[in-house]
Amino acid sequence: MTKNSCDWQPDEQGDFTAQGSDELPAENRSALHRFGPDYRWEGVATEAYRPEGSGFASVLRNVIIGGNGETCRFHLRYFELGRGGYSALEKHEHEHVVICVRGMGKAVVGDRAWELRHLDVLYVAPNEPHQLLNEGDGPFGFFCMVNADRDRAVDLLEDELKWLQESASTRELIRL
Amino acid sequence: MTKNSCDWQPDEQGDFTAQGSDELPAENRSALHRFGPDYRWEGVATEAYRPEGSGFASVLRNVIIGGNGETCRFHLRYFELGRGGYSALEKHEHEHVVICVRGMGKAVVGDRAWELRHLDVLYVAPNEPHQLLNEGDGPFGFFCMVNADRDRAVDLLEDELKWLQESASTRELIRL
Repeated sequence: MTKNSCDWQPDEQGDFTAQGSDELPAENRSALHRFGPDYRWEGVATEAYRPEGSGFASVLRNVIIGGNGETCRFHLRYFELGRGGYSALEKHEHEHVVICVRGMGKAVVGDRAWELRHLDVLYVAPNEPHQLLNEGDGPFGFFCMVNADRDRAVDLLEDELKWLQESASTRELIRL
Repeated sequence: MTKNSCDWQPDEQGDFTAQGSDELPAENRSALHRFGPDYRWEGVATEAYRPEGSGFASVLRNVIIGGNGETCRFHLRYFELGRGGYSALEKHEHEHVVICVRGMGKAVVGDRAWELRHLDVLYVAPNEPHQLLNEGDGPFGFFCMVNADRDRAVDLLEDELKWLQESASTRELIRL
């Protein structure tokens, strides 16, 4: 099961572990992650595209802060959705803070749909169903910040799904 | 005392309170803070420049996430240093994650000095002395993420200050 796009792991075996949150720091030193071509950061592993998954498509994920024993109570990740890409439609107790930094995209949050453009900041409150989508031709890239200790995403309830499938703002947009 | 640039408050009376961390949320709803002209975000108060302070200069601060009862364990702020601006030379237990998004600047972290350019990500580990500086003509703007619950910054010890004043990388750079 790799349904949970936000915490998708390239080699996960089904168990969820928030990286670094319950472990002693492997390394906790000041560092500069220099920005490089094609939205890569020095010292940050690039996790390969997967063309298709279960409930998501074309999602790239880079953990910039949180994978090297950093002790802050939050992680900073960079996600990129390729053409036609979308994250899982999901909800969870933990919050998201999203900053759009590459191209543009759309966010479904509850029964609202917002366009995200350069440096727009999106806050997703606890338990709000949400999905990020790329409907354009170029890549849609964004930082996503989360608590280091966080719950796992869950599927929407039937009523919630029906609500989004019937809402004028979201019914044409959401992907399952 | 407004020495602590990172947590500088326009009307503070000397007491430190991490915004929103120990209070019931005033508002905790999903929101889009749209990016606007001159690096302002919709729904985010702009805190005016102060031309000069005690130990810092020309610092603008916007709390994008953390001032409206958001429950995530971190805050997202946008700081901007005007021409000749610098943050306080300080240290604290809590970590910083900095993303450069406007112009360029310099960061002193321990006895190293790094140039920060577009989308470079800097991690400052606990208790590392640090200072951010603008030595260019245009504004230097960056996101800065911190734990919602955090300690107050303190001045450097004499030995630490001496170390930076003698280090080849930092001695010409630091400002008191």
